[in-house]
Amino acid sequence: MKLLVLYDGSTNALRAAESAAKLVKAMGGGEAVLLQVVEFWESGAWGFLTLPDEEQERIINQAKEKALAGMCKPEQVLKEAGAKVEKVVLVGEVVPTIIEYADQMNPDLIVMGSRGMGPIKELVLGGICHKVLQLAKQPVMVVK
Amino acid sequence: MKLLVLYDGSTNALRAAESAAKLVKAMGGGEAVLLQVVEFWESGAWGFLTLPDEEQERIINQAKEKALAGMCKPEQVLKEAGAKVEKVVLVGEVVPTIIEYADQMNPDLIVMGSRGMGPIKELVLGGICHKVLQLAKQPVMVVK
Repeated sequence: MKLLVLYDGSTNALRAAESAAKLVKAMGGGEAVLLQVVEFWESGAWGFLTLPDEEQERIINQAKEKALAGMCKPEQVLKEAGAKVEKVVLVGEVVPTIIEYADQMNPDLIVMGSRGMGPIKELVLGGICHKVLQLAKQPVMVVK
Repeated sequence: MKLLVLYDGSTNALRAAESAAKLVKAMGGGEAVLLQVVEFWESGAWGFLTLPDEEQERIINQAKEKALAGMCKPEQVLKEAGAKVEKVVLVGEVVPTIIEYADQMNPDLIVMGSRGMGPIKELVLGGICHKVLQLAKQPVMVVK
């Protein structure tokens, strides 16, 4: 089975990766794509568009590398469970980018945390989780 | 792994059972509890409380038997995938009854459809799905 595991660096997203790993272990293997979306306009990069193209590219590449490096832990968790793991970092608006990627990849299951990095109350679904649940055509596993 | 598969007789709930079956197959087996909650006050049983106790019990038993009989199809789908299946019908308010059962059973995963039998738009999560996602302590897989 092919899993699409969404990651945003939060402890909740790491728990989602751990749940995905549990599934992979129970299935005796599988494929997992770890996807992180870097959303530039919300990352404090104000005035970004006024920078020269090369400077913009450099900043984007830096952010992508940082995101990739930050995915070592969920990657390890999934690999130890027996998954073949691919790490993907995309730049764009979070929800549409996730949905578009899911449509291309067509995973058997999308795995995500119930809330992201914002200061959202324990019991309430995060906005991104809610939107992915509404828009994704594939089954979504939500991990608390 | 232990799955709790919620069922309400809708085609969407049957798709959820089929997705659960896919998981069971990929895992080479597993346990699945098929849970249906009969909510009396919304089932047209007005004036129910004015009936004699034995009559109430008879009506409840009838409803439970009907619900059990209606679970043959998802049961078959799960069994064919290699699951050990238990069917459970409970009477009560839908969401609290599901959450309480999940807390007792402590499944590895709750599987449910994104919407129930009401006339809810394709892309919007059903109210019960939304509430279970908010209240369940276990991972929830939502199937479209």
